[in-house]
Amino acid sequence: MTDPRPGDAVPALIGPVEVVGAGLIGTSIALVCRRLGLEVVLRDTSDENIRTATGLGAGRVVTPADRPQLVVVAVPPAAIPEAIVAALGRSDAVVTDVGSVKAAPLEAVAARVPATDLGRYVGSHPMAGSERSGPLAASAALFDGRPWAVTPHSGAPERAVALVEQLVLECGATPLRLAPDEHDRAVARTSHLPHLAAVLVAGRLASAPPEHLALSGQGVRDVTRVAASDPALWQQILEANSEAVLDLLAEVRADLDALMTAVAADAGPDLVEILVRGNDGTAAIPGKHGGPARPTRSVFVSVPDHPGELARLFGDAGEVGVNIEDVHIDHDPGRPVGLTELVVEENSAERLLAALESRGWTTHR
Amino acid sequence: MTDPRPGDAVPALIGPVEVVGAGLIGTSIALVCRRLGLEVVLRDTSDENIRTATGLGAGRVVTPADRPQLVVVAVPPAAIPEAIVAALGRSDAVVTDVGSVKAAPLEAVAARVPATDLGRYVGSHPMAGSERSGPLAASAALFDGRPWAVTPHSGAPERAVALVEQLVLECGATPLRLAPDEHDRAVARTSHLPHLAAVLVAGRLASAPPEHLALSGQGVRDVTRVAASDPALWQQILEANSEAVLDLLAEVRADLDALMTAVAADAGPDLVEILVRGNDGTAAIPGKHGGPARPTRSVFVSVPDHPGELARLFGDAGEVGVNIEDVHIDHDPGRPVGLTELVVEENSAERLLAALESRGWTTHR
Repeated sequence: MTDPRPGDAVPALIGPVEVVGAGLIGTSIALVCRRLGLEVVLRDTSDENIRTATGLGAGRVVTPADRPQLVVVAVPPAAIPEAIVAALGRSDAVVTDVGSVKAAPLEAVAARVPATDLGRYVGSHPMAGSERSGPLAASAALFDGRPWAVTPHSGAPERAVALVEQLVLECGATPLRLAPDEHDRAVARTSHLPHLAAVLVAGRLASAPPEHLALSGQGVRDVTRVAASDPALWQQILEANSEAVLDLLAEVRADLDALMTAVAADAGPDLVEILVRGNDGTAAIPGKHGGPARPTRSVFVSVPDHPGELARLFGDAGEVGVNIEDVHIDHDPGRPVGLTELVVEENSAERLLAALESRGWTTHR
Repeated sequence: MTDPRPGDAVPALIGPVEVVGAGLIGTSIALVCRRLGLEVVLRDTSDENIRTATGLGAGRVVTPADRPQLVVVAVPPAAIPEAIVAALGRSDAVVTDVGSVKAAPLEAVAARVPATDLGRYVGSHPMAGSERSGPLAASAALFDGRPWAVTPHSGAPERAVALVEQLVLECGATPLRLAPDEHDRAVARTSHLPHLAAVLVAGRLASAPPEHLALSGQGVRDVTRVAASDPALWQQILEANSEAVLDLLAEVRADLDALMTAVAADAGPDLVEILVRGNDGTAAIPGKHGGPARPTRSVFVSVPDHPGELARLFGDAGEVGVNIEDVHIDHDPGRPVGLTELVVEENSAERLLAALESRGWTTHR
């Protein structure tokens, strides 16, 4: 960590930091704090999680004598309000949580603690995770470059908010300050709705004949990928954000009705209008570095599907100094040669194509 | 091309091959046929397309004296029936098309040509494309390893079907034989529905506040990616397959209603059942090589976002002989360090992690 400058109003994060819930997120935060040299104490109902997390050097078991500066609640969604109330009650620390939904837990906590205690609670939500879970999957680098929402209620003093934001920065993430209900509407749109759309599309594949599914291309794979996530976790997330989710689902239901009407009536202009709005939506997602999306172009290369070929491709691409913004590998069934799509800045595409072709790659111009 | 074996009933593809529509797909097929040494004649209403395609060596301009063995119709969806009828009328060649929808064009053709002529028409649909269009984007490798549906009507003789399947194989693709209406129901499910779901989700982003969109992660980017496609092309595809698409949209609408009821009623088990069906659907998509999906595991690595770093990563991964099945690069805004997800076979993951760590990479265990 960096020391606060003289005269700086931001409180120093000096610890101890108490982490409640030594799973993937909690243990990852604990590892960051340990790397900063802070004292970290761990609390978990699972002895196995505690053993694993302490074994990883993420901190030590909490004792009744501990007086943390900051408590981080990182338990499953349904257990969050209870854990925040308990943390506010047993110390005078600033308390944050890392749950995916912010307004409902805040309301539940506010109903159960005095206003003076509530002032020490500042919710937050790192946009990070992994398909794996538990402390063994933890890493101090989990939050590198990620957005991390900080969602203070109106009664939270700036000192408490700033302390949480300092934790976010030390984790390598970018703090984004939003009111709790605004955060929930935002993630309903950018995370919960896309998730449910993927679930509905995937649900229509579950009973399809295999010879139909053999026609699956990269599109359906991309659209449905997130539907493979843990149902129990998503049940809790959706139930905690049901109001914002239902508002959006009602909007999508109206859009779906308009779409069905346009297709049934062969109403070309109406259908095109809906498709163009989809174009606009993909363009509205911010670019990799938070600014507007830079124009990119895809370069397609045939790559034999065996070890080392992709390495050779990236090695050759790297030699010309072109930065690859994204990669897609085609998963279509069939011969063991796949199309690899390298997404690069538009004005680098020709240089990359020429370089790859001169090295014997089959590109698709 | 390979010569048919003695006694082999499959007719040899010996040409000439006439390509109607020298765009991306048509010119790519023409390049394959030229590479096989076949005579290729090109027909297009656009002089510019013809100039470009002939300039690329894809063939020569068609003349009235040409007697093709096989005609490939590769024009925009709305122009396909007319082009098939014309091709059947002016020669005794086998005629195929490469449109995304099969039953409606067949019906339109059947209403306009004698049954004896109709026997020479065998529809097909390569699962290949590019974000670019036009002959300049063409490549003989465009179909490498892709599924390619071949959709004969009940009156098509085996000789005609086999000729089209031979073209498919020569293009490096895998022929999958399906009845036309079955094909249309299949792509409604594996392509048209996912596309429309992406459009509806993206449509809800178009007017969202930028500070909400700043929370966008990889999930929403994957779900909405295909919604960036050409609206005019998709209008034609959806209108040509409106019956199958509407059937599926009605099913999704019923699923959406059930989902909204489950969320509104806080009905946990119902919601979990819907989420589990989504899990089942993602698992039903066939694996990269057409067989059942092999168990994979994701390895997460922090990669500085500048040229050469990704090349270094793939080079290091390649040295241990691990085959990378897929790659995702995290696009989250923020610091110029991104998470790269390498998807590998489950039993290679530990070896890859150890190798990368020993070379100084920050992995996320």
